[in-house]
Amino acid sequence: MRKVTYGAACSLDGFIAGPNHEVDWLHMSKDAHAIMLDYWGRIDTLLMGRKTWEVAQAMAGGASGGDSSMMAGIDSYVFSRTLGALPPGQGHLVKENAGDFVRDLKGRPGKEICVFGGGELARSLFEAGVIDEVGLNVHPVLLGAGIPFFRDAGRIKLKLSECRQIAGGCVYMMYRVLRPRHRNLDLGHALNAAVG
Amino acid sequence: MRKVTYGAACSLDGFIAGPNHEVDWLHMSKDAHAIMLDYWGRIDTLLMGRKTWEVAQAMAGGASGGDSSMMAGIDSYVFSRTLGALPPGQGHLVKENAGDFVRDLKGRPGKEICVFGGGELARSLFEAGVIDEVGLNVHPVLLGAGIPFFRDAGRIKLKLSECRQIAGGCVYMMYRVLRPRHRNLDLGHALNAAVG
Repeated sequence: MRKVTYGAACSLDGFIAGPNHEVDWLHMSKDAHAIMLDYWGRIDTLLMGRKTWEVAQAMAGGASGGDSSMMAGIDSYVFSRTLGALPPGQGHLVKENAGDFVRDLKGRPGKEICVFGGGELARSLFEAGVIDEVGLNVHPVLLGAGIPFFRDAGRIKLKLSECRQIAGGCVYMMYRVLRPRHRNLDLGHALNAAVG
Repeated sequence: MRKVTYGAACSLDGFIAGPNHEVDWLHMSKDAHAIMLDYWGRIDTLLMGRKTWEVAQAMAGGASGGDSSMMAGIDSYVFSRTLGALPPGQGHLVKENAGDFVRDLKGRPGKEICVFGGGELARSLFEAGVIDEVGLNVHPVLLGAGIPFFRDAGRIKLKLSECRQIAGGCVYMMYRVLRPRHRNLDLGHALNAAVG
């Protein structure tokens, strides 16, 4: 199964952008770049919600302004029930249930999968139990309000796999998502019932 | 000036308790205990809001159930505009402006000062610019909703002073609060105008 990672740069109080989508507090550093470059080499699929896609479009200055070399070999999927179509070369539009789609994607051959941007798509995917890792670059700032990196998807237990200070007083933290035991037990019971 | 620290154990998404005040996810460890013990030796004053005081009362089983040895030599202040009075030996009730009160307290002789518990008192004190440090014990869990450790007090810039992994996959992070430059400049202008 391909690994799905939800990653974000966030404030100490868990926002990926301020109340007016401000990201001027983001600290770009060689350390952060090296982590991204290493990660980028392990993935071949990028998942994002409609809002993140629109922000990315605006930041890249439209289709012609994007860094196409960085996206070479990367398949991107935009999840939206409202968008009609994406411009040519801008990725695949997914209108079906996000959890089902990603569960299917994980079973296909390929490299790792990255969930990119805001918390709404991530919430659906957490609820569907298809996210395997959470990676954060925690910045030394409190925003107090804004777009949270995680929205109410019930309680999710994690296991810390890495934690280190990087440039700019940022802290890089990587966690593995622990699946609730009862899911396996339920599956076990179902299998027992099926073969019993 | 005495140092004021706002410290909390929180989830990775910044909640100090769940939506129903759940703290069953808190991991007690020798590491956390050692950090607390070291810190406890440096303070002589505890500040808390009314809600935190009520939760602490309930957890301690009322006045007779508390660990009085731990509170020996510690002055505690409960900030509330609605409480009439505190039971004898339960600390001092503060009804005046929290920022003004703490600014005055910082100028008096004494050891360090701890802001304890929920984010409402902390918000007033951040807004008043009297908090010097923020310490967090980040637990490996996402709660999605609950009582945030930080509530909207505008943007607060921090400087990471310590970060290390402790038992239970927790991460201990200590930050210094950076004061906005313009406050000093304003003070400089005011002084210049006063002596000019």
